[in-house]
Amino acid sequence: MKTAQPLSDAPLPGMTQCQAARAGRLTDALREVAAVENVAPETLREWVAAGRVIIPANPAHRRLKPMGIGRPLRVKVNANLGNSSLSSGAAEENEKLEVALAFGADTVMDLSTGPCAPAILAHMIANSPVPVGTVPIYQAVATLADPNELTADGLFAEIERQAELGVDYITVHAGLLRAHVPLALKRLLGIVSRGGALLARWMHTHGQENPLYAQFDRLLEICAAHDVTLSLGDGLRPGCLADASDEAQFAELEVLGELVRRARAAGVQAMVEGPGHIPLHEVAENMRREQELCDDAPFYVLGPVVTDCAPGYDHLTAAMGGALAGMAGAAMLCYVTPKEHLGLPNAADVREGLMAFRIAAHAADIAKGIPGARDRDDAISRARGDFDWERQFALALDPQRARALRAEALAEAAAAGPRPAPAPAAPAGAPELETAKYCTMCGPGFCSMRVSRELRDEVADA
Amino acid sequence: MKTAQPLSDAPLPGMTQCQAARAGRLTDALREVAAVENVAPETLREWVAAGRVIIPANPAHRRLKPMGIGRPLRVKVNANLGNSSLSSGAAEENEKLEVALAFGADTVMDLSTGPCAPAILAHMIANSPVPVGTVPIYQAVATLADPNELTADGLFAEIERQAELGVDYITVHAGLLRAHVPLALKRLLGIVSRGGALLARWMHTHGQENPLYAQFDRLLEICAAHDVTLSLGDGLRPGCLADASDEAQFAELEVLGELVRRARAAGVQAMVEGPGHIPLHEVAENMRREQELCDDAPFYVLGPVVTDCAPGYDHLTAAMGGALAGMAGAAMLCYVTPKEHLGLPNAADVREGLMAFRIAAHAADIAKGIPGARDRDDAISRARGDFDWERQFALALDPQRARALRAEALAEAAAAGPRPAPAPAAPAGAPELETAKYCTMCGPGFCSMRVSRELRDEVADA
Repeated sequence: MKTAQPLSDAPLPGMTQCQAARAGRLTDALREVAAVENVAPETLREWVAAGRVIIPANPAHRRLKPMGIGRPLRVKVNANLGNSSLSSGAAEENEKLEVALAFGADTVMDLSTGPCAPAILAHMIANSPVPVGTVPIYQAVATLADPNELTADGLFAEIERQAELGVDYITVHAGLLRAHVPLALKRLLGIVSRGGALLARWMHTHGQENPLYAQFDRLLEICAAHDVTLSLGDGLRPGCLADASDEAQFAELEVLGELVRRARAAGVQAMVEGPGHIPLHEVAENMRREQELCDDAPFYVLGPVVTDCAPGYDHLTAAMGGALAGMAGAAMLCYVTPKEHLGLPNAADVREGLMAFRIAAHAADIAKGIPGARDRDDAISRARGDFDWERQFALALDPQRARALRAEALAEAAAAGPRPAPAPAAPAGAPELETAKYCTMCGPGFCSMRVSRELRDEVADA
Repeated sequence: MKTAQPLSDAPLPGMTQCQAARAGRLTDALREVAAVENVAPETLREWVAAGRVIIPANPAHRRLKPMGIGRPLRVKVNANLGNSSLSSGAAEENEKLEVALAFGADTVMDLSTGPCAPAILAHMIANSPVPVGTVPIYQAVATLADPNELTADGLFAEIERQAELGVDYITVHAGLLRAHVPLALKRLLGIVSRGGALLARWMHTHGQENPLYAQFDRLLEICAAHDVTLSLGDGLRPGCLADASDEAQFAELEVLGELVRRARAAGVQAMVEGPGHIPLHEVAENMRREQELCDDAPFYVLGPVVTDCAPGYDHLTAAMGGALAGMAGAAMLCYVTPKEHLGLPNAADVREGLMAFRIAAHAADIAKGIPGARDRDDAISRARGDFDWERQFALALDPQRARALRAEALAEAAAAGPRPAPAPAAPAGAPELETAKYCTMCGPGFCSMRVSRELRDEVADA
């Protein structure tokens, strides 16, 4: 029997998720997230009130199915989409959005800086059931002849426009201060964040502090009014291993911690963005430090890439770092595609990037001990032991790929033609390969799982 | 000036690498490995004498360029090759060997169980400059109508035949005892090692102990005579996360530790094989336990795969575990290909598997603090900052793939046609895309590295 929801639970109009949680109210979004994550709504409410979990949900994003992001929950994966001045258009970007959603993106970001950017973002908000993020400085600058013509008013106007459109979270490089710039310029690769580099040059040219920091309260007002979540960008993330975990990176992180506290005080939801390029052995310490300096605000990391010298495989170098980061507490992983460092990703790259990161996030969930995280693994393992191929495909993170690779192997076996002997000990009346209780890797005689099952039966009969 | 090598350094004929090292003698193989690994020959000699490093180098393998394997050295990667009764032949396997060598396999194993297996192995030994490994029970069983017809004499005869052929290391599941079988049969997936499953059934049928354990001294005699290195196989490695780190696995590991000590006492080089399927958070502890139980014998792990539910991507699930294992001390990683759990890998799968694992091994080397491990990363990062594309390709772990993906991105940009405006702030007289100081990801206006370099110049001029 469904019990009536007590009236006092309903959030007041205009409250952010964080404010509602602090007022002890359970929003519809919070209830939905609690159900999906399989946690008690009251527990989730406490996490949201404390800022340890965020629910980026702009009320103007009508199609949104709310998503919770935070260390106590399943690790999330974001897909960066968007065109550049040189490549891709609205049609390509709409296709990339479809692929991102089909392959399990938990959030999507539109990073468009090329033609039709406003149309691409409007389409994304209208069609994405997952939270949508942007980097508003891109559009604020894209229409100017020179990025140094940017004004604080122009930037805040763009932020307000996107907040009204329904953007759920925005990346702002508000923690990059004038004082940090010399630290970054000493590096092998300087500043590799687009927003960070543009702001650093703006500060140098104008001799002024970063307007996102100087007028942070103005930013908080807009975000509070529209429940836009802040993604506090790391403009000084390292762009190579040589620059990892350096003074510039951690100086900015300290400011981001201060901004998290100011955002929370204003009832604005906030997460923190993180590196970047980090060697394997520094990944866990980077997570720990963010948790400490930023009071456990959800950490949203880009990879991290664990070696610089594998262009073409950066979905993989970054998923390795991402798996470790997730295990150590990163709340959301930004995918990296095979095109990273080489060019703008296309739809096929989006799929590869997402699959690598869904695997990383899932492996991290198991490692974190999220209840039930291993159920799917156990189920597919059972299907594997039963040689139930269809069930294995159904449980695979990418059924289409699994099916295609098995079909390829079967075709190669068929092409190899009849073999001299199916020895040793091929089962009499061997079935067609498609349904056989073995695969082409070992064949019937050397299928360990078949032999192991037979042994179990023999032992049971003995 | 080259100093003459003291006479007392020369190994005596018939000594294994381990025996020579203990006798204080520096073999040619040891000197070569020391040069490649950039360690002092005397230091390496101590490691080989202690058994912490092995140099699998059968004198009958004429083309061998010796390879050192051990925790203090660079992490190595093995590629499993070989056909099955259902798929692939000599031509395909010879091609897979070429691909494995081209993409950087540090050792190769021939796991053939199908037609032409003897020819495939002979070709591999004749053509591989890297150490060659096998699992002799496969050929001992392949010629029998029923694997249970196997005899100890037949198995040892096959081992001796392969030792004479020039095989550098052999996998023997000598630590899998009768007493372990009930522990393994309780599992979700039982025994997933081919050799392990065959031996377990043999022991049950005959009511006898594993001949590789019962007659281990006979095995040691053959290995000592030919300096064949033992790879002590984990017949009870877990085949799914549900079976990871269980009683069966660790009971066998304890016996493997005993066999390491017996091998060392007999002057036989030995490494230990490890899992398998292990969740991320148990990987480091698995490495630590092997180091403790097996007196730091080199640990040679298969992946480990960190989630069961990504068939089609198991090169990736396993490379994640492999990177972490390498960082925690695994000496050699056995690659896993995208076809794992689906079918026999082909040449394209060999490439994907090797690249994933070369990345994992390299990331682990950096994390372990191997001197100079990061040099290539720093060099490619410098080339990236200089927009020197040709140098980036030259330093990439897979230049061909990096070049192909950039070409694809450039072609897509060209197909997108002339754009409304190259704003903001496109450099006057923009060069052709192929040599441009930006890529299609960000375009000229949003290229952070370009902006960052310009800012550095402006600051320097100020």
